Amino acid sequence: MRMLLERVNSPQDIKGLSMDELRQLCKEIRQYMVECCAVNPGHLGSSLGAVELIVGLHYVFDTPTDKIVFDVGHQAYAHKILTGRREAFKSNRTRDGISGFPSMKESEYDAFGAGHASVSISAALGLAHAAKMQGRKEQDIAFIGDGAMTGGMVFEGLNNAADSNLLVILNDNDHSIDDNIGSFHEYLLRLTTSRRYNNLKKHVWEKLGEGRFRDKIRKFVKEMKSHFVSDFGGAVFEALGFRYFGPIDGNDIESVINALSRIKSLPGPRVLHAQTVKGKGYAPAEADKTTWHAPGKFDPTSGKRIVSPASAERYQDVFGQVLLELARQDSRVVGITPAMATGCGMTLLASAMPERFFDVGIEEEHAVTFSAGLAAGGMRPFCNIYSAFSQRAYDQIIHDVALQNLPVVLCFDRAGLVGEDGPTHQGSFDLAAYRSIPGMIISAPRNETELKNLMYTALHTDGHPFIIRYPRGTGEGTPWRDAGYEMLPIGKGTLLREGSDVAILALGPIACRAVEAAESLSAKGLANPAVYDLRYLKPIDEDILSLVCSKYGRILTVEDGTLKGGLFSAVCEYAALYACKADISGLGIPDSFIVQDGQKAQRRDCGLDAPGIENRLLEMLGSGPAMAGK
Amino acid sequence: MRMLLERVNSPQDIKGLSMDELRQLCKEIRQYMVECCAVNPGHLGSSLGAVELIVGLHYVFDTPTDKIVFDVGHQAYAHKILTGRREAFKSNRTRDGISGFPSMKESEYDAFGAGHASVSISAALGLAHAAKMQGRKEQDIAFIGDGAMTGGMVFEGLNNAADSNLLVILNDNDHSIDDNIGSFHEYLLRLTTSRRYNNLKKHVWEKLGEGRFRDKIRKFVKEMKSHFVSDFGGAVFEALGFRYFGPIDGNDIESVINALSRIKSLPGPRVLHAQTVKGKGYAPAEADKTTWHAPGKFDPTSGKRIVSPASAERYQDVFGQVLLELARQDSRVVGITPAMATGCGMTLLASAMPERFFDVGIEEEHAVTFSAGLAAGGMRPFCNIYSAFSQRAYDQIIHDVALQNLPVVLCFDRAGLVGEDGPTHQGSFDLAAYRSIPGMIISAPRNETELKNLMYTALHTDGHPFIIRYPRGTGEGTPWRDAGYEMLPIGKGTLLREGSDVAILALGPIACRAVEAAESLSAKGLANPAVYDLRYLKPIDEDILSLVCSKYGRILTVEDGTLKGGLFSAVCEYAALYACKADISGLGIPDSFIVQDGQKAQRRDCGLDAPGIENRLLEMLGSGPAMAGK
Repeated sequence: MRMLLERVNSPQDIKGLSMDELRQLCKEIRQYMVECCAVNPGHLGSSLGAVELIVGLHYVFDTPTDKIVFDVGHQAYAHKILTGRREAFKSNRTRDGISGFPSMKESEYDAFGAGHASVSISAALGLAHAAKMQGRKEQDIAFIGDGAMTGGMVFEGLNNAADSNLLVILNDNDHSIDDNIGSFHEYLLRLTTSRRYNNLKKHVWEKLGEGRFRDKIRKFVKEMKSHFVSDFGGAVFEALGFRYFGPIDGNDIESVINALSRIKSLPGPRVLHAQTVKGKGYAPAEADKTTWHAPGKFDPTSGKRIVSPASAERYQDVFGQVLLELARQDSRVVGITPAMATGCGMTLLASAMPERFFDVGIEEEHAVTFSAGLAAGGMRPFCNIYSAFSQRAYDQIIHDVALQNLPVVLCFDRAGLVGEDGPTHQGSFDLAAYRSIPGMIISAPRNETELKNLMYTALHTDGHPFIIRYPRGTGEGTPWRDAGYEMLPIGKGTLLREGSDVAILALGPIACRAVEAAESLSAKGLANPAVYDLRYLKPIDEDILSLVCSKYGRILTVEDGTLKGGLFSAVCEYAALYACKADISGLGIPDSFIVQDGQKAQRRDCGLDAPGIENRLLEMLGSGPAMAGK
Repeated sequence: MRMLLERVNSPQDIKGLSMDELRQLCKEIRQYMVECCAVNPGHLGSSLGAVELIVGLHYVFDTPTDKIVFDVGHQAYAHKILTGRREAFKSNRTRDGISGFPSMKESEYDAFGAGHASVSISAALGLAHAAKMQGRKEQDIAFIGDGAMTGGMVFEGLNNAADSNLLVILNDNDHSIDDNIGSFHEYLLRLTTSRRYNNLKKHVWEKLGEGRFRDKIRKFVKEMKSHFVSDFGGAVFEALGFRYFGPIDGNDIESVINALSRIKSLPGPRVLHAQTVKGKGYAPAEADKTTWHAPGKFDPTSGKRIVSPASAERYQDVFGQVLLELARQDSRVVGITPAMATGCGMTLLASAMPERFFDVGIEEEHAVTFSAGLAAGGMRPFCNIYSAFSQRAYDQIIHDVALQNLPVVLCFDRAGLVGEDGPTHQGSFDLAAYRSIPGMIISAPRNETELKNLMYTALHTDGHPFIIRYPRGTGEGTPWRDAGYEMLPIGKGTLLREGSDVAILALGPIACRAVEAAESLSAKGLANPAVYDLRYLKPIDEDILSLVCSKYGRILTVEDGTLKGGLFSAVCEYAALYACKADISGLGIPDSFIVQDGQKAQRRDCGLDAPGIENRLLEMLGSGPAMAGK
């Protein structure tokens, strides 16, 4: 069945293969990826498109001496499968399994870790200079998609590569997760459809009849394509000191190997522009690229996705629907996303009011400062970024939003623990990072209705940046559609459950788990905890803190964010400031990078579920070992 | 004397001036800037170069309806002087005076705040879309230097401007603070010296004799220059959907006004490439552009700088010399700076070992990830970034350095309060921001010798990113040159002064002020404080914390960073975790943006000097009002 693939345990094993065998190998890799991803979900679409490029690189170059730095990294499944992780790939993205992204810890073939976009050129350039200074001869290769190519860092990297021998593989599948965006994308399109090349092809074609001579010419033209196009088309790259080659058909292994072999020994920085098809070789994935970027489980034969019925709507869906409603109510509302329209739910606004919707591409920095400009011009931008990716715009959030005191609504989806994507994607740091920024309002909804109302409150709050952070996945099932809009007073929390012996201060949906824990303990007659949802981390509700400090000897903070700098810290600071001598304990994400696993399992391990809260309460109340903030 | 300038109170007042009068006005503005900056220091060089461009913009466009967004902003002095702040300019960068940067609070002519590089295009684009959606007709203009032009954000902005009417003024003075860097810079140079244009000029020239006809042709060629060059040279901009015009002589007011008038009413995004001379019109500043970027006080007539004798060497000088020494000791050591070689002291390494020195341009993100790549390749990169600008690389520090666990030494100069540059440049957030990142080592030297030894310790510490943060300005005058190298154990602090009734936990040079305060109180017989220099914020010295918690009823933390999330928070967290019931108070930067003023005055206002510490101790000891963390 997979005769060839079964024999490949390292890139050495593909060196002797014929072109036909390589073609067969690519086919087998695809089949294997589809089968594995069908039962163990992953980033299928990009990885299907990149098979030939990856096989070609390992065939032509001498890895791991030569080093491939993957950008983002979720297109690298074929690379994992070829480099001794064929069987391990079955455990992709699972606890104790392999990471869904390249990882230096995992394999010497993973030259640099990945997860975020647009870093590969800078990292590979560092490797290249290190090799040069240490007298090592190696080819360093940045492997980057056209989506990640528009991130500003790429330009910074390209700008510094002139005196290197860097090879950039531009994997152009005309897609980020959603459709691709921006002038650079248009530019790449022009390169591939240029009049000059097409005219030449047409001209040559018409002059020839059918037959072998025509085939020969076709091959010749195909091989020369890069030179013709390069001649006039690669101006941007060439302005930056790169030699541009392409575009080639990146799903044709022969073209790939020919092109790589030809440019392998050329000196200086080079870019090879390869066109690939996202989802290549698996019809459903080719047909719907956005859905099949990361399709979840599916039947590999029918291509039918196995979608388990959701217990409730996802936060992203609530966000999308409320944003559209608010946009209809208020002409100042606009939506901005860096290439995550589908993931954050902004596609609704995009279809209904395209002129009020901005997908800026994978460009978090621009997304935030552009939003700041919109706000300075009188609009009310809702800028939605995944929490982990908001890190890319940390300076813009400080300098262009907070310092300018502009009413930008920053919506951080995927805040807290995110599951299988692992440490690069955890939204652990946002609460801590933004709490220290003056003037920032930071909120976290407990459920769907609160998300709706916080968005409404943010829209009607002047002169302050406003963060709303909420988790990946489904909500609590609250009837948010029926709820009217309500202003949630800035800096005011709410009592969820009366109690006596201990107070829980929670932020976000974990407050609901805190209530469950409190009810459970109460039912068992073990304790009677009060539960407060603080709702705002900043400004924090000092009335609640004051009350709790005076009334309770024990306080437990619970948050889906790092313990170092977030809610726990805020409460500890308050206690010091006002000489509150209560025992304070904190549940949150510990001070380590949380690796891939199910979201539920990650939460359990951090004690961020009802049983975890219950256990900590018991510890605090003396029925267990001494409390610790972990 | 300044007959024209005295009459200009708003841009309206220059509309009727003749070309000769405009020339005179530019001259008067320059004189005035030189005179003011001679006694009240500022960013002179860039502002001198930008006079004609700014006068031209206000002449041709209708500000403040049309909006100029300045990038970085320190080139905007002429703009401030023309827009009602001529007299106020005498108070530039002083307490209660005007900001050295554009500020929306300060004037309706300041369309967006500035301070950091590369944001203007994104912000102006936001303003442009806001105007369009609200039916306002206005020209939004991004005014950006060639140094800031290479920052990745610019590319992100350009990539999203195709359907706007943005006008970008590229003020190309061939300089950032140090010499300019990178391929894009080379590209701009090529645009201005292109063979085709020069050949044409030469050709036309040779065909003509002297006389009026030649003059007419000269004028014609000059005017057409933009078109000829644009025809082939603006490929990068044109690939991104911009129409490229230039280069023009940006110090010739007539050329500027002609060019602006011509492109004013053209639709779509346009870039005008203007060549200017940094320091223009003031000979000393033209001759030494780096020194005169921000020269301090000087005698305007002689051009002699008034340098007050330093009490001690500056931290940046110590850094530079130690780095060179370490580089000589260890072939793995390399230095990386984003365009701050002079400011951080790396020019020493640059001259002595140019192959081990990398100035990557104003590109903090690339600087950090490039350093990560170097470390992954076996080198020991020392990446020096001003604390405030490190914010731009927050994600790269998390994702490419900390998560990969690479031994990158991140040196944050200008940490803490920085003085006249004001809120955009304060290094307030680094301690809080990086403390929540797992695996990070964070240190702050108390004096020059400690800086030397922390650099040495960082070099010899494997597998961990290592932050060393230190302030702007001079050190304590310790004999660091004579001191041998010493490893300072990771996570271990040191006792500076024995005491009894209260313990001070300090970080950085403020620890020396804490000792002074303790001595003073002790001499007065008012108290006997112990003083610890923690040296490392992370890992924090739990032995000291444990000792202090058990021995002292009162603890004061002192840090030159925000109180929300830094040392104060770390100590409060520890106290909660280990049920330490001591009174804890904190001195640090309060939760607000600290505006321009002298560094000393800013520190005084935050209580971050010896008298401030003394006062807080007295409060804590009950001789004053109840303590508060402020």
